[in-house]
Amino acid sequence: MSADNQQERLNCNWVVGFVDGEGCFHVAINKLPKMTLGWQVLPEFRIVQHQRDEILLHQIKSFFKFGEVRKNHDDRKEFRVRGLKNLNSIIKFFKKYPLKTSKRKNFEVFSEIITLMNNGQHLTNSGLKKIANLASKMNRKVKRNLESSETIRRNFKNRSKI
Amino acid sequence: MSADNQQERLNCNWVVGFVDGEGCFHVAINKLPKMTLGWQVLPEFRIVQHQRDEILLHQIKSFFKFGEVRKNHDDRKEFRVRGLKNLNSIIKFFKKYPLKTSKRKNFEVFSEIITLMNNGQHLTNSGLKKIANLASKMNRKVKRNLESSETIRRNFKNRSKI
Repeated sequence: MSADNQQERLNCNWVVGFVDGEGCFHVAINKLPKMTLGWQVLPEFRIVQHQRDEILLHQIKSFFKFGEVRKNHDDRKEFRVRGLKNLNSIIKFFKKYPLKTSKRKNFEVFSEIITLMNNGQHLTNSGLKKIANLASKMNRKVKRNLESSETIRRNFKNRSKI
Repeated sequence: MSADNQQERLNCNWVVGFVDGEGCFHVAINKLPKMTLGWQVLPEFRIVQHQRDEILLHQIKSFFKFGEVRKNHDDRKEFRVRGLKNLNSIIKFFKKYPLKTSKRKNFEVFSEIITLMNNGQHLTNSGLKKIANLASKMNRKVKRNLESSETIRRNFKNRSKI
């Protein structure tokens, strides 16, 4: 069943409320030798749900008009947005319709990182460090850094289960 | 800081989206000798958040104009609604602004149980069994029943972490 066939379109405020609860702004910094500096900065926005709500994830995809619905793990599915163009659209949306939980702070740092990437800063040593610092400044639970780890996963979701 | 002092009032659709993510419709059936049948049916609606978002819970309380914000456990706070009068208002709200996740099914069973309670059915043996059956029909993870357990906790939230 395609979400496009569903008559009802999601309401912007509902989307914000749902993302305040279930959304996740995430940046991975992965060691990748083929990249200019040997590191790949991989930002993404995602919403993970039990597979019973997969249709809703498709509705969210239809709402934004981009992103993909895919398997997360086990019985979980996710709506995932990657790529600067689409992430810039996500940022534009949440600037117009602000998040209300403390997740908003994560979003703001995420937004700052995307701005740096828009300017190609992730391709410079200083920019890469700035991005890593932004992430660590925001999420103190993550102690690893570029020097000590193969993969830095900066999870911007302020939830203890992460 | 009182949520009443905050200029911004929550949007109905935002509340629905947030509850689709974070809300919980719950009924406990507790053995309580002083009750007519020896059992207490205790329905409640709640939203649990990290304490960093306590102010938002107060905003939600201001939105509904009832309920209480209290400690859940550890660093968690909850907005909690008990009592038939207020729960009927909650049901009225979510009938006007329907949930979009599969949590809606839980809500519908919850609503059915509240209707039975409105009619005093929880004070009759047959009504009490009906309530227990409704809960078990909805949430198959809970296998305990009135005969085998001191406390039946029927958790209507369709999330595997529960």
